[in-house]
Amino acid sequence: MSTDTATADADTTAYEELLSRYERISSLQSAQGVLSWDQQVTMPEGGTPARSKELSTLSSLGHELLTDDETADLLDAAEAADLDDEQAAVVREIRRDYERADAVPQSLVEEISETSTEALGAWEEAKADDDFETFAPYLEELVELRREEAAAIDDDRDPYAVLFEEYEPCLSLDRAERILDRLKETLVPMIDEIADSGAAITTDAFDGTYDTDAQEALSREVLTTLGYDWDRGRLDTSSHPFTAGNQHDCRVTTRFDESDPLGGLTATVHEFGHAFYNLGLPREEWGTPLGESRDLSVHESQSRLWENHVGRTEAFWEQTLPTFAEYFDTDATSREAYESANQVYDDNLIRVEADELTYHLHIVIRFEIERDLIRGDLDVSEVPAVWNDKYEEYLGIRPETDAEGCLQDIHWSHGNFGYFPTYSLGSVMATQLFDAAEDELGDLDDDIRNAGFDRLHEWLRENVHGHGARYETNELVEQATGEPFTADAFLAYVREKYGELYDLEASV
Amino acid sequence: MSTDTATADADTTAYEELLSRYERISSLQSAQGVLSWDQQVTMPEGGTPARSKELSTLSSLGHELLTDDETADLLDAAEAADLDDEQAAVVREIRRDYERADAVPQSLVEEISETSTEALGAWEEAKADDDFETFAPYLEELVELRREEAAAIDDDRDPYAVLFEEYEPCLSLDRAERILDRLKETLVPMIDEIADSGAAITTDAFDGTYDTDAQEALSREVLTTLGYDWDRGRLDTSSHPFTAGNQHDCRVTTRFDESDPLGGLTATVHEFGHAFYNLGLPREEWGTPLGESRDLSVHESQSRLWENHVGRTEAFWEQTLPTFAEYFDTDATSREAYESANQVYDDNLIRVEADELTYHLHIVIRFEIERDLIRGDLDVSEVPAVWNDKYEEYLGIRPETDAEGCLQDIHWSHGNFGYFPTYSLGSVMATQLFDAAEDELGDLDDDIRNAGFDRLHEWLRENVHGHGARYETNELVEQATGEPFTADAFLAYVREKYGELYDLEASV
Repeated sequence: MSTDTATADADTTAYEELLSRYERISSLQSAQGVLSWDQQVTMPEGGTPARSKELSTLSSLGHELLTDDETADLLDAAEAADLDDEQAAVVREIRRDYERADAVPQSLVEEISETSTEALGAWEEAKADDDFETFAPYLEELVELRREEAAAIDDDRDPYAVLFEEYEPCLSLDRAERILDRLKETLVPMIDEIADSGAAITTDAFDGTYDTDAQEALSREVLTTLGYDWDRGRLDTSSHPFTAGNQHDCRVTTRFDESDPLGGLTATVHEFGHAFYNLGLPREEWGTPLGESRDLSVHESQSRLWENHVGRTEAFWEQTLPTFAEYFDTDATSREAYESANQVYDDNLIRVEADELTYHLHIVIRFEIERDLIRGDLDVSEVPAVWNDKYEEYLGIRPETDAEGCLQDIHWSHGNFGYFPTYSLGSVMATQLFDAAEDELGDLDDDIRNAGFDRLHEWLRENVHGHGARYETNELVEQATGEPFTADAFLAYVREKYGELYDLEASV
Repeated sequence: MSTDTATADADTTAYEELLSRYERISSLQSAQGVLSWDQQVTMPEGGTPARSKELSTLSSLGHELLTDDETADLLDAAEAADLDDEQAAVVREIRRDYERADAVPQSLVEEISETSTEALGAWEEAKADDDFETFAPYLEELVELRREEAAAIDDDRDPYAVLFEEYEPCLSLDRAERILDRLKETLVPMIDEIADSGAAITTDAFDGTYDTDAQEALSREVLTTLGYDWDRGRLDTSSHPFTAGNQHDCRVTTRFDESDPLGGLTATVHEFGHAFYNLGLPREEWGTPLGESRDLSVHESQSRLWENHVGRTEAFWEQTLPTFAEYFDTDATSREAYESANQVYDDNLIRVEADELTYHLHIVIRFEIERDLIRGDLDVSEVPAVWNDKYEEYLGIRPETDAEGCLQDIHWSHGNFGYFPTYSLGSVMATQLFDAAEDELGDLDDDIRNAGFDRLHEWLRENVHGHGARYETNELVEQATGEPFTADAFLAYVREKYGELYDLEASV
């Protein structure tokens, strides 16, 4: 045996050993996903003390496996080896996880986790009492701790850019900011234009009271129509809709409100998009980065693609209204349902109840505030006033309470700063991907109208799901669409759609 | 600081570190319990590949933590320290787990696990096809592997005694054999006596068809009546009833059959007993042996106590029949329900459908066969004939097929040898415990009749549940009942109960 062969063998062995180690880490994370789903869906209330211990043990063991010296040695050896492109991508992904986990002291991780737990309780109370003051000290501490974390990872860079990478590691904050700025510049005047248009679209097609059992049955039918694989999934209800799982078992939850049949159905379609992505990851690659989804923007692009580009179309209502009518009395036409499902609200303060346009201004406000907090350009005490001013400036409405203002979202109480932008980035990416699919396949309206989703399924499998985390975000978008990731497609789409709905002038 | 104090500090530290390590191991086991519950109750079918990986990773990590040199060092240091009785019991329990896990090579553990997986598939097929020959090679291999395991643990002792300790580590096989032998000696003639008695008891109170949704609603009501804490539990259905969880979250499952309302209800009451034990373990001791249940005989004593000494009494039917009648048309009296629920079958070949008396002969047969297999006194090829002969000898019936003979139970395909006896030991222990409770509290019939279970709850909490694994099995029974663990109470109980039902002579 020559020395060369011996080295190659040793390196291949390092790569294989790295994969085995990563599979253990993945198994631990996957188990945490099940425990967490159970906690939110099936666990009796009293189970919390044991569940917390189970989750923290699994999390610590995973962190220890990832940051062990042995992982570092295996990464070094694998990187020195002669790897093909896919193997190199695998090592790149594990390296990124390793560096980030290794940079942050375990004591800081634990402090953030403990502070978040306290902050969550404080936030719940503050929101109920409309009392920002009692939440402020926790928010200050979390901002400070996350700034420390960013400094531990890279002291030379913008701390907000560093935190953003936790949720979206392979799309620069620069690109994200450019996109968010364009959304603001374009949507603020466009929403004004809509308010001034005087167009009389139907808004009441879903008024009334709707039995929640019937809503659930309808959601199940729609999931089946969209192509949800019930052998690898299930639908439950939870206080916040979410998706959990992997290519073997990916479950969605939704919630139903008697007075709002659209809310539950829209959440179901949104979560279907998340689940359909995970279920399309290569099964044989489970436990490796090639069997994992890309990060939050790409994930959100999949939920928004189904929510907006399928579920909010007139063709969807032509398909769905007859089923809807089997469960509920309605004399709405599909056009009326479409209009009601796409009305732009001029008085809504709540992000999760926003329409497809104003939604992004809710996000931009949060983005600008959290960015300035983390950069040290804004004080926690100024948040309520800045929040309200921005709502007035961007959306023409002003919250009367902090409960319906800066206390409305849970994210900051979890210490999540840098998460919000991925919601808008995902929507924007969804349009670019959907346009590319239609460029290749032709108009998909008939497919939606006839519930024939095979072509769209296949396109998504081939261009997005099947790659796992093989490509970085921008690379993935470029490969799928032939263009870098920008806001162009999204802005053209909303101009056309809402131009038609609200009878606006043809150009921006 | 004196040297003595320094040593004491070091030892206390070792004890604390041992506890921390054990808590991690417990968390991993507890997480496996949730994953396994999910697999049997909520997981979509396709989830198996990921679930298998998750479970095997958690199991391996737990094994590695337990058998690590650091555990051995901490055990040595803790044992050398000045511990109080409770601490000493904690160390004793961890030492026992450690020794057993450390003695068996990981390769053998994995071989048994893999062979069991194959054997399970082969058993399912063999049972469906009534073809013992195809299962025989797997059974042979499992017997051989478990004999190797016993030899690895202790080469000088009876291998069956060693395997029995996996399920019941602190009750000697000698005592178990004495009890099983007495059951056989007493019950075989007593069952003959019953068959010859000619007594005409009611057997048809539960004939008919019973809606399974209504059965489930009834089971929920009965669980509430017995005192199940719904804040820390839930009821679901699964193909085999089971209980999973701990003092914070302990869930039961049952199954319903339209033609047998008693089967589902009895399973519910049985599983309630298991769950009520776990829910009574000290909450602050979760993750230590003081917060864990004693082994399988004690656990089964709790399920059987509620199943037999509460659920199979006439007082229970006086309490339950009015509720039953809210769900189902019935003109049965509580006496008739009681008689039907306690009929002794003379033609039943299936263990899980057996009555309170013949049940134990089903167990004795399995015990004698598996003991002889593991001791090398019986060949796998002889199992079907020996099985059928023993059924004829002990129960006066002979299976016509192996499917309803030696292939009926799943246990051996899992490689579980030594498990079956704990079912009978638990029933026998249940009677001894229930008698002791009545000795102290007076007759409990009125409590059962009036659904007033506080006194029994409290007695069980104080004498059994609250101790966790503080005492070894026999010690626990002696403390609770004032007597060593024997079959006396059980045999007196069945003589009295079935003597009255079947009008037998007063003495055995």
